[in-house]
Amino acid sequence: MNKTVLITGSTSGIGLAIATRFAKEGYDIMFHGLESNGAAIANEIGAKHKVKVAFSKANLLKSDAVEGLIAETIATFGSLHVLVNNAGIQFVSPIEDFPNEKYENIIAINMNAVFYASKAAWKQMKQQQFGRIINISSVHGLRSSEFKSAYVTAKHGVIGMTKVLALEGAPYNITCNAICPGYVKTPLVEGQIKDQAKAHKMTEEEVVEKVMLVKQAVKEFVPVEAIADMAILLAKDTSTTITGTSFALDGGWSAQ
Amino acid sequence: MNKTVLITGSTSGIGLAIATRFAKEGYDIMFHGLESNGAAIANEIGAKHKVKVAFSKANLLKSDAVEGLIAETIATFGSLHVLVNNAGIQFVSPIEDFPNEKYENIIAINMNAVFYASKAAWKQMKQQQFGRIINISSVHGLRSSEFKSAYVTAKHGVIGMTKVLALEGAPYNITCNAICPGYVKTPLVEGQIKDQAKAHKMTEEEVVEKVMLVKQAVKEFVPVEAIADMAILLAKDTSTTITGTSFALDGGWSAQ
Amino acid sequence: MNKTVLITGSTSGIGLAIATRFAKEGYDIMFHGLESNGAAIANEIGAKHKVKVAFSKANLLKSDAVEGLIAETIATFGSLHVLVNNAGIQFVSPIEDFPNEKYENIIAINMNAVFYASKAAWKQMKQQQFGRIINISSVHGLRSSEFKSAYVTAKHGVIGMTKVLALEGAPYNITCNAICPGYVKTPLVEGQIKDQAKAHKMTEEEVVEKVMLVKQAVKEFVPVEAIADMAILLAKDTSTTITGTSFALDGGWSAQ
Amino acid sequence: MNKTVLITGSTSGIGLAIATRFAKEGYDIMFHGLESNGAAIANEIGAKHKVKVAFSKANLLKSDAVEGLIAETIATFGSLHVLVNNAGIQFVSPIEDFPNEKYENIIAINMNAVFYASKAAWKQMKQQQFGRIINISSVHGLRSSEFKSAYVTAKHGVIGMTKVLALEGAPYNITCNAICPGYVKTPLVEGQIKDQAKAHKMTEEEVVEKVMLVKQAVKEFVPVEAIADMAILLAKDTSTTITGTSFALDGGWSAQ
Repeated sequence: MNKTVLITGSTSGIGLAIATRFAKEGYDIMFHGLESNGAAIANEIGAKHKVKVAFSKANLLKSDAVEGLIAETIATFGSLHVLVNNAGIQFVSPIEDFPNEKYENIIAINMNAVFYASKAAWKQMKQQQFGRIINISSVHGLRSSEFKSAYVTAKHGVIGMTKVLALEGAPYNITCNAICPGYVKTPLVEGQIKDQAKAHKMTEEEVVEKVMLVKQAVKEFVPVEAIADMAILLAKDTSTTITGTSFALDGGWSAQ
Repeated sequence: MNKTVLITGSTSGIGLAIATRFAKEGYDIMFHGLESNGAAIANEIGAKHKVKVAFSKANLLKSDAVEGLIAETIATFGSLHVLVNNAGIQFVSPIEDFPNEKYENIIAINMNAVFYASKAAWKQMKQQQFGRIINISSVHGLRSSEFKSAYVTAKHGVIGMTKVLALEGAPYNITCNAICPGYVKTPLVEGQIKDQAKAHKMTEEEVVEKVMLVKQAVKEFVPVEAIADMAILLAKDTSTTITGTSFALDGGWSAQ
Repeated sequence: MNKTVLITGSTSGIGLAIATRFAKEGYDIMFHGLESNGAAIANEIGAKHKVKVAFSKANLLKSDAVEGLIAETIATFGSLHVLVNNAGIQFVSPIEDFPNEKYENIIAINMNAVFYASKAAWKQMKQQQFGRIINISSVHGLRSSEFKSAYVTAKHGVIGMTKVLALEGAPYNITCNAICPGYVKTPLVEGQIKDQAKAHKMTEEEVVEKVMLVKQAVKEFVPVEAIADMAILLAKDTSTTITGTSFALDGGWSAQ
Repeated sequence: MNKTVLITGSTSGIGLAIATRFAKEGYDIMFHGLESNGAAIANEIGAKHKVKVAFSKANLLKSDAVEGLIAETIATFGSLHVLVNNAGIQFVSPIEDFPNEKYENIIAINMNAVFYASKAAWKQMKQQQFGRIINISSVHGLRSSEFKSAYVTAKHGVIGMTKVLALEGAPYNITCNAICPGYVKTPLVEGQIKDQAKAHKMTEEEVVEKVMLVKQAVKEFVPVEAIADMAILLAKDTSTTITGTSFALDGGWSAQ
């Protein structure tokens, strides 16, 4: 029997890389995302790696949709071993003009959905005496940047939640950790480059060099493969004592 | 002309101690709280220390009420120099049974209200070229305890927000810091003692010794005066370069 | 009876500002430093604020000299309430060329002397059931900069020691905290400006703007008064539960 | 051509597990340790995994011996890709009675040797445009325990050094990270159990349950395999952007 992993936001970017890697390792996978061709993406990976897959478009803004996503995963696969809370959105604005609705949506998807999903998965993981919750937070869960009040708040909040779930999961072999990447070249970041160019009145090239990677000592985007490596390590049977930690993969950002 | 301070949740506990201390230092004060005799509490302190006071019962669950509270403060006093985001609620439960509504209310009051209030105060503080935002977070903004997923998430979120506002406020002499107390004997904590006694199936005395203060090296509750001392220091004119920091006053909790 | 404070490196810079402030608050003071006119500096402050003073030139490179300094303080004043470990040296070089002797001296003065002094003061503080150890670490006790391997190592080491002493002191009302300033305009920093100008091949003006304060959001040096304010707060009788903490006064450096 | 790894303290405990794992992955290995049968241990692993090995008994208390160890490694293998600074000693005592010599030896081996080794390896790594420095710090590099002033100081110091070397190494594809394990059942820890039993006046069983693992949420020792997994991940070619980080593998200790 394969183990089962659910990865939110897995039809592109970091989530897709993680899903592909878990498929390679023989996990059955519940894909989730907004891409209209999400089912096709899932099926292709499933066929290639000979693992069972399914796909959901659940709207993470709503608690009942999140709960439904977990229920559907368990119904489809009969188990849920690894939950990767990866989906996220971003919006960049000075605090003074930050639209309330944008703030609320970022908190809902980047933070509250992690709570609803983890809560909904808990009973199954407890029963299995095995669970691995992996939250894709960000270096912004540990440090800040201007104009990102909502995102940094949500990502810090997830770090806190991670620590609590680690404590509560300890008796049941449920671990909970956060991965905190620096800048990764994903569709989200490509959008940020455009947004920041406007906010800072710079060209997109200048944003990459002078804004995005200015805080990383290593002047390269973090490859999605490094994040997938870390996720696989955390999911291992022998990783029971690795819990409650934030793993920064950030090119030296948080070291300075 | 006195400086003006708004302190949410200032009709009892930590907030009341901070308000009393700011009154002593000659600040005009906007009180806020749910106590039915809030206005009387405010007036008594105002009379004693000869400072101007007002009182609001704004419902911090709602963004427009928070915005209204800021607007009323500025309308009443003509200024807003120091914003102390202190109001908070708590609920204790294993993640599996944590009611969604309890989670949502904790996030709303302990975290989102800090965003709405700071955003609403920003323009005035910018104009003044002076602002001091002091967020009463908690050692739970830095560390975790089991059964407190919502509270720890919100308090960590506030730490993130604090860091962003520090960066954005730097050009305008607006600072933003968090104070992170360990256990303080407030009405909130007295309630927690009762709740935890149920959750852990202990007597209340055992909760104090074995649950609450078990993580503090110093086996005393943190006095509200120490928190007020810190708030006064942060509010000083000469504290322009003190910003973006979390000040743990926690009896050695976070050191271990 | 006045309380007694010993401040290492107190004949200039941060230490002198702290000493002046403690004198104003009515503490008797043991000065220490390398300035040839150290005794005159001490006497002038003592006369002005009507407190008892003494002065030592103890060589902090040697453990027995550090132990002698503590013994002399206790012999002179009959007590030792507050120990401010402030003395420090700096050297800037790429790791590859960092002279071993420079590394060893920085570790000896900035870190080992804190150990020897705290250890030597312990018995007296225990007997008094009162002690306040205040370590002037640095933002470099929390974050790093290139070319400062020895300094950052020592300052991080002091943070660790601070946490242990906080735990061990808790039963005796001995607290231990660290203050972590960003850039302060002291003789040490003026020297660093020169050194970094060489290391980075820049003018001194460029070093200030682009190297020193580049990581602070607030583009001002941290005033020595802010550090003295913090030290006074930590020394208070009512600060028993404030222990084991690192207080960053860093213009937003560590927030980013 | 195999890559080369030098692991200090690799004839037992964590170091031996890391060495065994690197051998399995095809690295040539410089062993180091105090065990009299160190050469035999090295040869056996080399033969089993068909990799080249050597063994040194260098005395890490002395800077020239550390430098000699690096030189010998490069002379023997013609390269040095991965340096694992793992060797460590411990001593447990209240600060008041902590022998200076014990303090000095802990600082020398657990911290200074990391500096001398990294410095000596730097030129070779720069030339290779590849280097991976992995410091086995400890959860005591992030948090503290009473009676361990020297160890916690040294381990925090190493975390600081790690951050600086990460920044300085960034242009040369030299990364530097720390792994921070909680309690691992090694000969060192078995010794600690005995020492703490004396210090706390407890049986050895009580020390394990009530002292050692009391701060871990997961009541299991961290397996050496988890540490080896992490080291292998950090050593990868694709881990260029993972640098300056402290990876806590601590059963939830630092989360609380």
